[in-house]
Amino acid sequence: MHKKGNINYFKLLVTCPEKPGIISAVSNVLLEHQANIVQFDQHTTNPKDGLFFMRIEFDMEEGDAALEQLEQGLQQLAQTYPMEWQLKNKAKAKRMAIFVSKADHCLMELIWRWKSKELPVEIPMVISNHPDLKDIVESYGIPYCHIPLSHETKEEAEHKAMELLEGKVDFIVLARYMQILSPGFIAKYPNQIINIHHSFLPAFVGANPYVRAFNRGVKLIGATAHYVTNELDEGPIIEQDILRVNHRYTAEDLKIAGRHVERSVLAEAVSWHVEDKIIVHGNKTIVFT
Amino acid sequence: MHKKGNINYFKLLVTCPEKPGIISAVSNVLLEHQANIVQFDQHTTNPKDGLFFMRIEFDMEEGDAALEQLEQGLQQLAQTYPMEWQLKNKAKAKRMAIFVSKADHCLMELIWRWKSKELPVEIPMVISNHPDLKDIVESYGIPYCHIPLSHETKEEAEHKAMELLEGKVDFIVLARYMQILSPGFIAKYPNQIINIHHSFLPAFVGANPYVRAFNRGVKLIGATAHYVTNELDEGPIIEQDILRVNHRYTAEDLKIAGRHVERSVLAEAVSWHVEDKIIVHGNKTIVFT
Amino acid sequence: MHKKGNINYFKLLVTCPEKPGIISAVSNVLLEHQANIVQFDQHTTNPKDGLFFMRIEFDMEEGDAALEQLEQGLQQLAQTYPMEWQLKNKAKAKRMAIFVSKADHCLMELIWRWKSKELPVEIPMVISNHPDLKDIVESYGIPYCHIPLSHETKEEAEHKAMELLEGKVDFIVLARYMQILSPGFIAKYPNQIINIHHSFLPAFVGANPYVRAFNRGVKLIGATAHYVTNELDEGPIIEQDILRVNHRYTAEDLKIAGRHVERSVLAEAVSWHVEDKIIVHGNKTIVFT
Amino acid sequence: MHKKGNINYFKLLVTCPEKPGIISAVSNVLLEHQANIVQFDQHTTNPKDGLFFMRIEFDMEEGDAALEQLEQGLQQLAQTYPMEWQLKNKAKAKRMAIFVSKADHCLMELIWRWKSKELPVEIPMVISNHPDLKDIVESYGIPYCHIPLSHETKEEAEHKAMELLEGKVDFIVLARYMQILSPGFIAKYPNQIINIHHSFLPAFVGANPYVRAFNRGVKLIGATAHYVTNELDEGPIIEQDILRVNHRYTAEDLKIAGRHVERSVLAEAVSWHVEDKIIVHGNKTIVFT
Repeated sequence: MHKKGNINYFKLLVTCPEKPGIISAVSNVLLEHQANIVQFDQHTTNPKDGLFFMRIEFDMEEGDAALEQLEQGLQQLAQTYPMEWQLKNKAKAKRMAIFVSKADHCLMELIWRWKSKELPVEIPMVISNHPDLKDIVESYGIPYCHIPLSHETKEEAEHKAMELLEGKVDFIVLARYMQILSPGFIAKYPNQIINIHHSFLPAFVGANPYVRAFNRGVKLIGATAHYVTNELDEGPIIEQDILRVNHRYTAEDLKIAGRHVERSVLAEAVSWHVEDKIIVHGNKTIVFT
Repeated sequence: MHKKGNINYFKLLVTCPEKPGIISAVSNVLLEHQANIVQFDQHTTNPKDGLFFMRIEFDMEEGDAALEQLEQGLQQLAQTYPMEWQLKNKAKAKRMAIFVSKADHCLMELIWRWKSKELPVEIPMVISNHPDLKDIVESYGIPYCHIPLSHETKEEAEHKAMELLEGKVDFIVLARYMQILSPGFIAKYPNQIINIHHSFLPAFVGANPYVRAFNRGVKLIGATAHYVTNELDEGPIIEQDILRVNHRYTAEDLKIAGRHVERSVLAEAVSWHVEDKIIVHGNKTIVFT
Repeated sequence: MHKKGNINYFKLLVTCPEKPGIISAVSNVLLEHQANIVQFDQHTTNPKDGLFFMRIEFDMEEGDAALEQLEQGLQQLAQTYPMEWQLKNKAKAKRMAIFVSKADHCLMELIWRWKSKELPVEIPMVISNHPDLKDIVESYGIPYCHIPLSHETKEEAEHKAMELLEGKVDFIVLARYMQILSPGFIAKYPNQIINIHHSFLPAFVGANPYVRAFNRGVKLIGATAHYVTNELDEGPIIEQDILRVNHRYTAEDLKIAGRHVERSVLAEAVSWHVEDKIIVHGNKTIVFT
Repeated sequence: MHKKGNINYFKLLVTCPEKPGIISAVSNVLLEHQANIVQFDQHTTNPKDGLFFMRIEFDMEEGDAALEQLEQGLQQLAQTYPMEWQLKNKAKAKRMAIFVSKADHCLMELIWRWKSKELPVEIPMVISNHPDLKDIVESYGIPYCHIPLSHETKEEAEHKAMELLEGKVDFIVLARYMQILSPGFIAKYPNQIINIHHSFLPAFVGANPYVRAFNRGVKLIGATAHYVTNELDEGPIIEQDILRVNHRYTAEDLKIAGRHVERSVLAEAVSWHVEDKIIVHGNKTIVFT
């Protein structure tokens, strides 16, 4: 929102065991290097002996040399405070690959938000096991890679996808991609693969959640965006939301209604990921909104 | 909302296999007996060969004789249409027993809505396995029956409760009652016992849902009001709602927040039950709101 | 949801002063003509002397002759009951014109729901006072009519739009169209023009609602879909919804967030209109959802 | 949530014109005085030349002397940074007076949350212009001051209330108190009087909002908790929420539904005030939740 010339914006994410003075120490380093804090968020799991999380947005008027010095300062600090830290340049758009199958609703939501500049990403490619969405994706100037996939060719297909992605993307969104990724694939993108599950997890883990929701007679249907781990539908939850339904909804109606909550939940989660607002901690997320 | 002298209001609930002409037939019988339809709700699971549900609110200017004749008319109709029907007098307040343990939030919500005349019921008694809430309940002029209960005396205690309830109540609300009722007890009050479960069922079925929600890192917590059946937490869902939470909530905070959604969800479900807005169909409810 | 061969589905909308027996009378006429009621909704403003509204979905196995006879039957009934009625063929898709200016979010939402068959309409044309959205609209095979408009040419431009629409459309959606329509135009489409206002009406009637919401420090922002009347922002409300915001939202952020609630609220309202679920009564709507 | 022996918890609220280094400076002072930051929240209206807000929760192991030294440190810092600051002891319960008229729903919600220890306050008195709620309030051991009030005695009555409050309360909640306070009264409790308005402000400012909401045919009803200023219904908004309604709701039904959203919105706002989570800035609030 705040635009000036020759100024760089950065985001610093810190995870550290609780130790008195950490805020003071980090903010001093920033001040020392003429970094001006614009936004500051913090969380502690336990002030006595827990973990401490910090997210700082700051701007700096100088160029690369200053940044390097700041990084050295933080490096040095990490010797006193056993902290993990990441420094992200706000100006540098993340590169997002989208995986889809046949359903287009989550894909189109992401593309629309990207096109309207709500989602400041690059989309180097869309990868799909089906050809169906090729035309619509290419009409937006986004390369569409159709990698057919059968039970026999699954491994090979995934290998091909990995090659396409190599060095070209920062994170991956499974926008209703109906295949399970292998542990090897997931290991290459830790906490960098976002999936949308079409239920309010942990309710209706697994297949056909809308049919099961219909059979159970629930009064709300939900969607859950989470990071992908090797445990199916068990990764850290980023965002969830629900829609109210009633006895008039057929299983098909639930599915249709579900699309709307899926796309808004996924898009929200992706936007937080893109803005580095999420820190993963075990099987949970801290989301600084 | 519409109050006149010498007029009686009724609610007619009908369940019937789909058969053309049912609306026509029932409304003709009502018209014939000078019953004036005020509200009409209907649902079909499948217009071809499904089940048909109907709820009609009507008023009648005459007295008991006319009502009896109407009942005969409906009885006769049930020979042509294999329908189950119930006729309820709106003026006659249902008698509600409340079962509690130690937590008072659901109890107090029900009492407050009863006292403010939002909930048009009588409360002949509150039954509890603990003495804690005796004073507050009695301060509202409601009898409080403390029936101590141990593993050994469970059967005997339930028997005692049944005796107290016998002929005195129309339905039972488990307002955070932490005991499981026996099949025999439940059989005496089919679709007449409402429980509040402190999670968004079917997520976190069973004990300690808030701790498990905390461990799973959910972003919403929910509550579910349902009719009690022999399958624990598996009865027909009446109402569900959720509250948004975030990483700052401890398990204890989730529990506190959960109270608020529990009491509003339970009170809503109870009010629909009281107004005969619910028809149970298998393991589901049709709620005509 | 229920598809069979050679069967026609219809919707009957009735508005009538309260008079005992109306449900019976209408359902008898339907039965007489072999019309099978699938869904029935009703509302009364006052059972004593108010207005009575009814919406009936039914199917009929026969063809045009039977339908004509049914219409005659209803016509005849309207001599006893002073009712207004409309009979709609569910199979016949409504023709929807969309008016836009430069913002595309509401437009794209409607197009996406149309393309995914969620919204069973035809879109004969999109009309705009700007050329910006021509390419994207035409890429979906929808004609785009750019009618430039200045203060001087407003009348002429509207006249041109009317000619284009003449006989080609059933209703009009103003999808963030930033011009005010003349009374003459509105009179041609009574209760057939749907607008989306970017606030929770009646809060922030008029221009720049997001800036004013920001200045007032509200904690929720809303959107309102309503039928267009000659009183700006005063037409019958069809649907409203809100999003939660906080002190971190700039006026620009509110606007961005607002887009999401605008498009879902508008799309919902349009879908109800398309399914003939709305009856307008004075300055209000009855929505049978 | 974190309870230890001999430890004091404090909250520091800071408002300051933007100036680089403020976070560093304040956190250094805290560290110097062995204050351990548990929670840190911050907001900037504009990083260039805006206002900077900060809320810090911290604990200190020592006693009064240490606290005094910390206060001196902050005092000194305020000479470099033109900041306003407040230091609050978390252990010290705020004293809350409740003003009511006849409606009890907001009052009872506050009392229930106080009794269940959700709301860590003292309630030295309830003041009312009506005697109706005396018994219920006194049954909780809370003094009830009935100050009758007519057009003629308004000034005198307010004077009497002021005397009763003098030195006994920290803030005041108008829990559906149907009288307008004088500027003199309000001036004594700046940003310390919380009112609940029964609409989604700024919609339906003033009297009879539910009747006007009914007449306008809105699809949502809301409630707004705000600080009281001399401009009626124009004070800084603390919290707002809504409930969905439909055409079946009479004006009376809207009022009944409104009660539920009123009491949850008011209780939420009060709890934030009690925990010093709110900073007022002009006509807006920053709420650190």
